[in-house]
Amino acid sequence: VANIEILTIGDELVEGRLVDTNAPWLSARLVEAGFQVTHHQSIPDDRDMIIAALRSSAARADALLVSGGLGPTSDDITAEAAARAFDRVLELNQEALDHVVSLFARMGRRMTSNNKKQAWLPAGTTLIPNGRGTATGFCLEGEGTPIYFLPGVPHELEAMFERFVLKALRERFNPEHTLVSSLHTFGLGESKVGSLLEPLTVPSPGRLRVQYRAALPEVHVRLCLSGFDEGDPAGLRTLETVAEEAASRLGRAVFSRQEESLAQTVIRLLKSRGETVATAESCTGGLLGATLTEVPGASAVFMGGIVSYDNRVKRQQLGVPDQLLEQYGAVSEPVTRVLAEQARRRLETTYALAITGIAGPGGGTPNKPIGTVCLGIAAPRGVSTRTVRFPGDRNRVRLFSAYAALEMLRRALIELESSDTGQD
Amino acid sequence: VANIEILTIGDELVEGRLVDTNAPWLSARLVEAGFQVTHHQSIPDDRDMIIAALRSSAARADALLVSGGLGPTSDDITAEAAARAFDRVLELNQEALDHVVSLFARMGRRMTSNNKKQAWLPAGTTLIPNGRGTATGFCLEGEGTPIYFLPGVPHELEAMFERFVLKALRERFNPEHTLVSSLHTFGLGESKVGSLLEPLTVPSPGRLRVQYRAALPEVHVRLCLSGFDEGDPAGLRTLETVAEEAASRLGRAVFSRQEESLAQTVIRLLKSRGETVATAESCTGGLLGATLTEVPGASAVFMGGIVSYDNRVKRQQLGVPDQLLEQYGAVSEPVTRVLAEQARRRLETTYALAITGIAGPGGGTPNKPIGTVCLGIAAPRGVSTRTVRFPGDRNRVRLFSAYAALEMLRRALIELESSDTGQD
Repeated sequence: VANIEILTIGDELVEGRLVDTNAPWLSARLVEAGFQVTHHQSIPDDRDMIIAALRSSAARADALLVSGGLGPTSDDITAEAAARAFDRVLELNQEALDHVVSLFARMGRRMTSNNKKQAWLPAGTTLIPNGRGTATGFCLEGEGTPIYFLPGVPHELEAMFERFVLKALRERFNPEHTLVSSLHTFGLGESKVGSLLEPLTVPSPGRLRVQYRAALPEVHVRLCLSGFDEGDPAGLRTLETVAEEAASRLGRAVFSRQEESLAQTVIRLLKSRGETVATAESCTGGLLGATLTEVPGASAVFMGGIVSYDNRVKRQQLGVPDQLLEQYGAVSEPVTRVLAEQARRRLETTYALAITGIAGPGGGTPNKPIGTVCLGIAAPRGVSTRTVRFPGDRNRVRLFSAYAALEMLRRALIELESSDTGQD
Repeated sequence: VANIEILTIGDELVEGRLVDTNAPWLSARLVEAGFQVTHHQSIPDDRDMIIAALRSSAARADALLVSGGLGPTSDDITAEAAARAFDRVLELNQEALDHVVSLFARMGRRMTSNNKKQAWLPAGTTLIPNGRGTATGFCLEGEGTPIYFLPGVPHELEAMFERFVLKALRERFNPEHTLVSSLHTFGLGESKVGSLLEPLTVPSPGRLRVQYRAALPEVHVRLCLSGFDEGDPAGLRTLETVAEEAASRLGRAVFSRQEESLAQTVIRLLKSRGETVATAESCTGGLLGATLTEVPGASAVFMGGIVSYDNRVKRQQLGVPDQLLEQYGAVSEPVTRVLAEQARRRLETTYALAITGIAGPGGGTPNKPIGTVCLGIAAPRGVSTRTVRFPGDRNRVRLFSAYAALEMLRRALIELESSDTGQD
């Protein structure tokens, strides 16, 4: 397996002003594609350090990916250091210059002499086109090792990696063809998901790697299958079989096999049924609505909501009777039931989701400790509520509350789907 | 200046399953304390690679901080690799064992033999107590370089760094005493903030480093002053003078000098006046309310809100006249004015904030392109509205919209504060 190292360059990284997300992003894509990554390094915009790091990594790895230091300012010295590291001259690359010139012309902006600097590259390099910015990427061989230089801006780097670098690496190293299937889950911790899938095997010649990634509060699983040639139908069949097995072991925790977020799944299900949803939020303060409306096109199904943080708002905007608040308290299933019912009625939607809870750090009691959350769903068939207790701090309790409410709706929709199908 | 390197260990890091936040966190604290950081490295849980990385870093740096691989499972091999790297025997450390035993007793949980493994440490190490978990940290000298081993769990690592490692590093290297003053800003980009502060100087013997950190959409500035002994009142005076100068150059963009978020600042100002706020949100879908209620104690001032995503909800829950929606469209100042007024009236608060906008990716028109957002504030003195245009994608437009609404409220409150003071 070809061993690839990643070097990220920038004072802001080593001084802790910016968290490096390029190295993990590149690694995840490389590992998925059948490569091995054994080393991330971050160093400052310092010529001698860049030279030393390039040389030692090139001597050690089969390929090296470098990001950062290709910008127009004086502290961007990666190209110059690369030339020195491998005894090349720095020369004005006409193709790179044309790119910068045309990009500025397109934006109707004036080019500075700094931007011209970005076209000075080591001799004998192959350009990596950047469709989204002025910094051209390039590739050169250092001590027989291919080194790919990419800008530090994530969306530029990602597009250049996908379109050029990954292809070049595949051609050169011919890694095992890998088929990938995703399962997105909610409701089980990462270690629980891991233990449920632990003895997951595939028949020869298949080989399976299972990758987990916590996208709090979701846990994403990727099944990476190798051992089959590209286009071999046996590979796709084996992947489907193992994905089915994984999905059945994880049960209802799997909400999507299509790389969706939970909110995207819920919105897709609602859209396909032509139904709508409203919210009534207390401890989450609007987080459930915010999560739903992160998804483009949410307006087709999400009508709105009432954030009834204070009890007066619960009474006046959602008609919760005083007597109920006094007898049971705001964080109770009877109150949550009214919130859900009234939000559904007043906002005229198919469904409404309600959340009340004690997110902390204050407000806990022996009967209702911090983390106690009541969730409700109002549907055409009636209202149901439940009480759960989430561990963790205020933000975690709020985040899990919003997702648990979405999950109640998803399960209600799934049950309808399966009963609809049953009737066909 | 003592030069410190950071090594983080774990398959999940090099495979891209987890973004390394420990290295940037440690770096920021070290740089602030007057140290220099020139190297982050991440490597897998592999004995030979750990040994090689420990040796090369120890030979190069003045001190080395290591995190990860101290857990109870079989892939946690950092202690064993450290012993091999520097020719020590691995021995059962009684103090570390006592720690694990007492921690399990306190939690009322049963200890496994795996946990006992965590007490096997290289001979001749100094323990670094962990108040929050089973993994004991330790320090040893490798080739004359002090190496501090900490667990990978961020809140454990952070507490151990603050209480033990930073103190030990200060005693050993006696870095220049550094005084720090923070300014949190909103409304200017990081590069604009940087250029406004660029020629910021202090009189001798002071020396100033200015650090920027983008905490999107806020930009945080830290002024780090060295050159004065601890307790020297001239140092504090100089810091205050330069902080005043920085604050005056940044003007109204500075919302806090107390390490607060913008929501915390707004809530503090409202609390001190005994006033309240409500929200009426369209394109943000609840994000403004969610941002306010992230702050513990928000319930004292935030009553709730109406998420009027669909126009029907704007009409029915906030009384926006049909004619206004037809004539001006939902994203317009006249509609935003009604949303703010009505939210204030119906939720009976001192202030109400309203947001309507076109977050994209769809919905833009030549007159109202994507990013067009109307903001409104209703106050006892009346209502004011404005229209802004934010660049970027859907999530960025929504985030900036919520913060810009908070900022409108903060400025209103600040003006009242200064006019109140004027009357005294």
